[in-house]
Order: sequence, then C-alpha cells, then structure tokens
Amino acid sequence: MSSYNSHLWNKKMNNALKPPSKEPSIRLVMLPKYTNPDGDIFGGMILSLIDEAAAVEAQRQAPHRFVTVSMDSIQFHRPVQVGDIVSLWCQAVSVGRSSIEIHIDVLANPRRSDEEYKVTEASVTMVAINEERKAIPVFGD
Amino acid sequence: MSSYNSHLWNKKMNNALKPPSKEPSIRLVMLPKYTNPDGDIFGGMILSLIDEAAAVEAQRQAPHRFVTVSMDSIQFHRPVQVGDIVSLWCQAVSVGRSSIEIHIDVLANPRRSDEEYKVTEASVTMVAINEERKAIPVFGD
Amino acid sequence: MSSYNSHLWNKKMNNALKPPSKEPSIRLVMLPKYTNPDGDIFGGMILSLIDEAAAVEAQRQAPHRFVTVSMDSIQFHRPVQVGDIVSLWCQAVSVGRSSIEIHIDVLANPRRSDEEYKVTEASVTMVAINEERKAIPVFGD
Amino acid sequence: MSSYNSHLWNKKMNNALKPPSKEPSIRLVMLPKYTNPDGDIFGGMILSLIDEAAAVEAQRQAPHRFVTVSMDSIQFHRPVQVGDIVSLWCQAVSVGRSSIEIHIDVLANPRRSDEEYKVTEASVTMVAINEERKAIPVFGD
Amino acid sequence: MSSYNSHLWNKKMNNALKPPSKEPSIRLVMLPKYTNPDGDIFGGMILSLIDEAAAVEAQRQAPHRFVTVSMDSIQFHRPVQVGDIVSLWCQAVSVGRSSIEIHIDVLANPRRSDEEYKVTEASVTMVAINEERKAIPVFGD
Amino acid sequence: MSSYNSHLWNKKMNNALKPPSKEPSIRLVMLPKYTNPDGDIFGGMILSLIDEAAAVEAQRQAPHRFVTVSMDSIQFHRPVQVGDIVSLWCQAVSVGRSSIEIHIDVLANPRRSDEEYKVTEASVTMVAINEERKAIPVFGD
Repeated sequence: MSSYNSHLWNKKMNNALKPPSKEPSIRLVMLPKYTNPDGDIFGGMILSLIDEAAAVEAQRQAPHRFVTVSMDSIQFHRPVQVGDIVSLWCQAVSVGRSSIEIHIDVLANPRRSDEEYKVTEASVTMVAINEERKAIPVFGD
Repeated sequence: MSSYNSHLWNKKMNNALKPPSKEPSIRLVMLPKYTNPDGDIFGGMILSLIDEAAAVEAQRQAPHRFVTVSMDSIQFHRPVQVGDIVSLWCQAVSVGRSSIEIHIDVLANPRRSDEEYKVTEASVTMVAINEERKAIPVFGD
Repeated sequence: MSSYNSHLWNKKMNNALKPPSKEPSIRLVMLPKYTNPDGDIFGGMILSLIDEAAAVEAQRQAPHRFVTVSMDSIQFHRPVQVGDIVSLWCQAVSVGRSSIEIHIDVLANPRRSDEEYKVTEASVTMVAINEERKAIPVFGD
Repeated sequence: MSSYNSHLWNKKMNNALKPPSKEPSIRLVMLPKYTNPDGDIFGGMILSLIDEAAAVEAQRQAPHRFVTVSMDSIQFHRPVQVGDIVSLWCQAVSVGRSSIEIHIDVLANPRRSDEEYKVTEASVTMVAINEERKAIPVFGD
Repeated sequence: MSSYNSHLWNKKMNNALKPPSKEPSIRLVMLPKYTNPDGDIFGGMILSLIDEAAAVEAQRQAPHRFVTVSMDSIQFHRPVQVGDIVSLWCQAVSVGRSSIEIHIDVLANPRRSDEEYKVTEASVTMVAINEERKAIPVFGD
Repeated sequence: MSSYNSHLWNKKMNNALKPPSKEPSIRLVMLPKYTNPDGDIFGGMILSLIDEAAAVEAQRQAPHRFVTVSMDSIQFHRPVQVGDIVSLWCQAVSVGRSSIEIHIDVLANPRRSDEEYKVTEASVTMVAINEERKAIPVFGD
C-alpha cells in the first residue's frame, strides 16, 4: 500500500480527507535517555514517534481506533542529536475503504540554533478497526 | 518573579519578545507508562512537559542555554487520561536582563474526540546562562 | 491556596495534622537517564518527585485518595547532578475541609561527599476525593 | 534499496556474508510499560527492536559502526500482547560496498503457550561508517 | 533452595525437565539509559534481566504462572558496558513439586568485537502458582 | 561472602562501621510502569532498588566508589503492588579490607493503609575501587 500504487485509491474518498494540519502532530525534545551506544538518538525512538504521529493524524481525519498495518519508504537522511527539538508533520495522502496512508516528515531543530532540516521521512498505512478488531470504513459507508 | 509583579519588568525589553508561536511547543500522546497508581496520568509527567515546553519557548526567543529558576501558579484543572493528545502552548509574558517569564497552557484532546480543553496552566521563570553557569543578558547588552 | 492566605485555614483542623515525619517521603539516586541535554538532572524529574512526595505525605496524614490541584513557590536553588542522593522532606502546613497544603524541601547529597544542601523547594495543595472524584473531608466530618 | 532491486547487488560480495545465526538477534518479554493506549504493545516498541536487531546482525557480519539509512516493507501481521516473548530473527540478504540489507522476522510466543507466530517483518538497510561518519567498505577493500 | 541442597530434590521429577534450550532466553543491547552514575551498566538492570530470563525458562519447562521466591549465588564477575550485546542462558537444574531452580549465565559481547565472556551468574528459584496465588505442581500430580 | 562466614571478617574493622541509619536508604512509590505481565511489581524492579540501596549505604560508610560483587540470600516473601510505598532499610553487617557486606530489608506500605510489612530481604557484598578499578581499603590502611 505504498505511494507508488496510490492511483488505486478511490479519488472521491481522497477528496474527503482534511487538508494537512498547520501544526505538528508530535513535537518534543530529544533527551540523553533516547541515545544509542554511539551517542546519537536511537533510530527506534524516531520510529516510535513516526508511529505515534501517524495515529494522531489518522484520528484527526476520522475518530476511530486505528492500527498500523505497514510502513514503507523510511529514509533516515541525517542523525538526530541530543537536545534537538523534533517535529513530526503529517499528510494523509490517500484513503481506501478501511485504510488511510499517511506521509510523515520528521524535522530537527538543534539547540541554540534557528536552523531546521528534515532528518527522516516515512509512509505509514493504518486501518480503522472496531472493538472486535474488524476493519470498518474510515468515512462512513 | 510571578505575574503579579510583571510591572517591574522593563517595558522596552518586553517589546523585544517575539509574539507567541502558532504551533505548540510540545505535543505528544499519553501512554500507559505515564500513569499513576490511580490510572490517571501522573502529575509529574505533566510538570516535566511544562518544564520542557518553557525551555523550547525560551530558546525560540533567544538561542541561549536556559535554566529554570522558579515556577508559580500551577493549576491542575482536570485530570489527563491515557490516550489524550497533550499540547503545550507557551507565551513569553515578560523579560528581564537575564530572565524570561513564560506562561504555559496545557490542552488535552481525548482519543476519538474533537473536544480539547485546558487541563493545566503554569508560569515558569528561566534564566539565560553561559558555560560557567553565570547569568547573561537574554537580548544582547 | 498558597501559603500567603493560610490565615484562611481552620486552626482547629490544623491541630489535627500529624507532626512532620522524621524520615524522608522519597529518596533515590539520580541516574544518567534523568539528565537533560545539558547533562544536569532534568527539572521535570525533580518536579515528578515533588508531586510523588506530596502524595506520600498526604496519605500519611489521612488514608484517602488525593489529587494535586495546585503548586506554588517552586524555587530551583541549585542544579542536581548525576549520582546525587536526593531526599524529599515534607511538612503538612495547613488543612481545609477537603484540601491539604504541603511544603516540600528537596535536598541533594553528592556522591562521595558528606555534604547535603537544599536544591529545590515547593508548596503543593492536594484535595481528598472519593471514587466519583468528589471532594471529601480530609479528617472525617 | 529494498529487496526488489537486490539484483543490483554484487554477487561476489554477497558470498562473503555469513549464513544466518541459529540464535535470535534480540529476545525479550513484553512488559506493560510498552503498551499503547489500547493495551496492545506499541508499534514503535517493535520498530525499536527491529532497528536494534538489524544493528546486532550487521555487527555480526562485520565489526563496524553501522547506521540505519532506510527501512522498507514493514508489515504488521498480528498485534503483540503484554507477556509475549518476542524474538527477532535476522538474515543478511545482500551487501554492497558500504551497505548491508537485513531482513528481520519478529516472532511472538504468548505466555503459557507453546505457540509462536510471525507478528511483523521488515527490511533494513544499514551503512558502515568510520569515526568521521564517512561510509567505509563492509568487507575490506 | 540453592544448589547445595539439590540432593533434596526428587530425581524422577528432574528427569522430566527439558534439556537446556540452544537459544538464549533473553538477548538485548545495552543502551546509555541503563547506566549508573559511573557510566557502567547498572547492576539492577542485569538483575532485572536475570529475573526475566528465569521466568522465560520456567514457562518453557511448564506453561504456568511462576513467581520468584529466592535468588542465590549471584556473582558479578565483570562490568557490563554500553553497547554490549547481553545474552542470558538458562539451565533448569532441579524441580520440586511446585518449585523449579534455574541457573543463569549472563554473557556480554562488546561492540565491534568477536569476544564474548561471562559477566554474571545467578541461581533463581521460582514457584508455579494458580489464579489464587496458591502453589501448584510444576509437572501435573 | 554471605553471612554464614561472617566470622571470617575482621572484628576490629567491623567496629569501624557506623550504626544503621534511622532513615531508609531508598524510598519511592510503585508506579504502573514497574509492573510485570501479571500486574505485580516486577522482581527486577525490586532488585534494582536493592542494588541502589546497598550503594547508598556503602557510600554512607565510606566515601568511595563501590561495585557490587555478589548478592545472596534474596528472599521474596510477598508480592509488591502498584501504589505501595517501598522503603529499603540497610545494615552494614561486616567489612573486610576492601569489601563491605550489607543486609537490606525491603518494606511495603500499601496505599491508604497504615500497614507495613517486609516483602523482600537480601545480602549484598560491594568492593571499594579506585579510578583504575583496583580494590582499595574501605577504611584507610
């Protein structure tokens, strides 16, 4: 369900998607407890935030319970350092009956600096489910 | 240094303050690991985020190292629950030679809900310091 | 509900307060995972401990469930370092029908040193609640 | 650098790869602190382990410092529950001059059960770097 | 219930024990967040893993809920460092009606090294319990 | 080095030991993040606190860096629950040239209760070391 087959998605449904938020889905400061043995921020920490951000955006689009079914195209462009303020910006790029695909850009703003640059990007597909874990429509029937 | 004596602050310096950001300083999802024995989010978790948000706003105003010297007027209006998306909005309300006072509103957006309400607010005073931990001017000399 | 209006509190109720414990409410060692990006112990960690210590003291006074409603007069006097043994000493300073105000001193004892000094102090107001989160009397009716 | 273009990799180099280990790269028990607000294990936790397992396998192949440059084809087949013993099995599938691609299967063995099944799989590409963060050959020159 | 009185254990029951697994019970990478103030991995972290590994081995022997009742003969031979891949190997050494004694060896493989050596060993006794926390037979009646 | 061979310790050195502190070495509240999959507090958490408490007591006796070399006679008498206030009381029971043996009692005070009972006890042997990790005398020469 990655972006190269997004032509398979229903165009009408995509029109139901809200435009991207003008606020980050997740933002926080990178603490020493998130470092790997080399002193950089652990990739797994960034991946955790990506998963969390996708869930925030999915729930902004439709107030369901969503589960992550796949991730693709995760690119780690630059390392993240202790003290960086990390912001995750989401865009819902397509929607199917029960699934929604979200693109996430992760930006880092180092301490005592005005600079901000993209460190990671990813594509996450989530599925809306009900109490019995059955897939349900994202946008009504 | 809480708000009731803000008339003591230098008006000209205050004019140097940037207007509040249109984005939250911190935003994240409340996980079960942040709960207290009663199942609510632990007050200390929210206080950690307040301290972190104040540091983010202080560094947005001026790219120094800041340390927290005092907090005041922390009001816990409503409990925070697991799954809430918590956003911290900051406003730098006054600035002295080396110190800056920041007001923080903490908003919670429960899962699968459009509702968002203030759960906590606080006032934090931070001081800009140099490598030797000496106070330095926030905005040049 | 901070200390400057403590004259509003009922004197008779205050007499019901137990004297301060001769033991700290909380004591633990500061580990590297509690540091901020500058290598000091994160202010939020100390605030978490303050909130926890106030709850311990409140329950020592009366065996209820308490929630924190406000904090005031938090002063950070000195930084806390990795390896410090941190002790939180509480004093219940006044009590109302449903609320109790607790003063907390935070002391730090650096590693391999006999020295101990105050690093932080704070005032916390907690309210006794029942299962339905309604305020209840701290000391019977 | 995902598997569909693995024909681009140098066959001779691939022959230098050690066969898969007969032991898991990572294995641990899922604790309540790893849950998301719905009570399942947080996807980000599993992703952290995948990143960690890929690093373990890369270092088993060649004793360098590796950084993750991309992840692809992450499929979450089934949820992971508290108490599951989670094992990550790695296979180095191809190697380039400085990069190595590792496939990871994540298996879960629920408590008090003999059953074990695949919950997640992923493909991770890592690059060997030196002290100056420059790419270096995985297997000598 | 440590090893010196293992002659008290029923020989027939011991024969019911499965031979040691050819895989580690627990394996993971030591991150900076597990360090003590001196920069080594905190002893308590290793002890946590020992307790977890014993539970994994006990459940492999018999699918019950087990609780730890005692530990003995814990020897810390060498310090564990950040970046070490730590593996816990278990052997069920004897079994009583409701209890099982497990010996654990903790091995460390430093980063970018082929070397692996024993850092800690321990002996853990666990008891099988039912829902009411009553001891139950490990291997039927 | 457990207690049954304490007759081997030098009596004169033992006389140099300070009497037990009238305050706990460690005290804190058990949070949900410390639970095991069965909902009790994880044994490893208690073991971490024991190790930390022994270090606090050792440093109270003599201001050196200490490392844990062994633990013995750890008995888990009762489970620890979320919300319990856990206190660790230490007694230095004997001292050798470079080593010190400390007995630790772990008490639990359940929430909203005056009751307090022993949940665990243990014996820990630590060795004083210098910068080069060489054993040094605990009490001068």
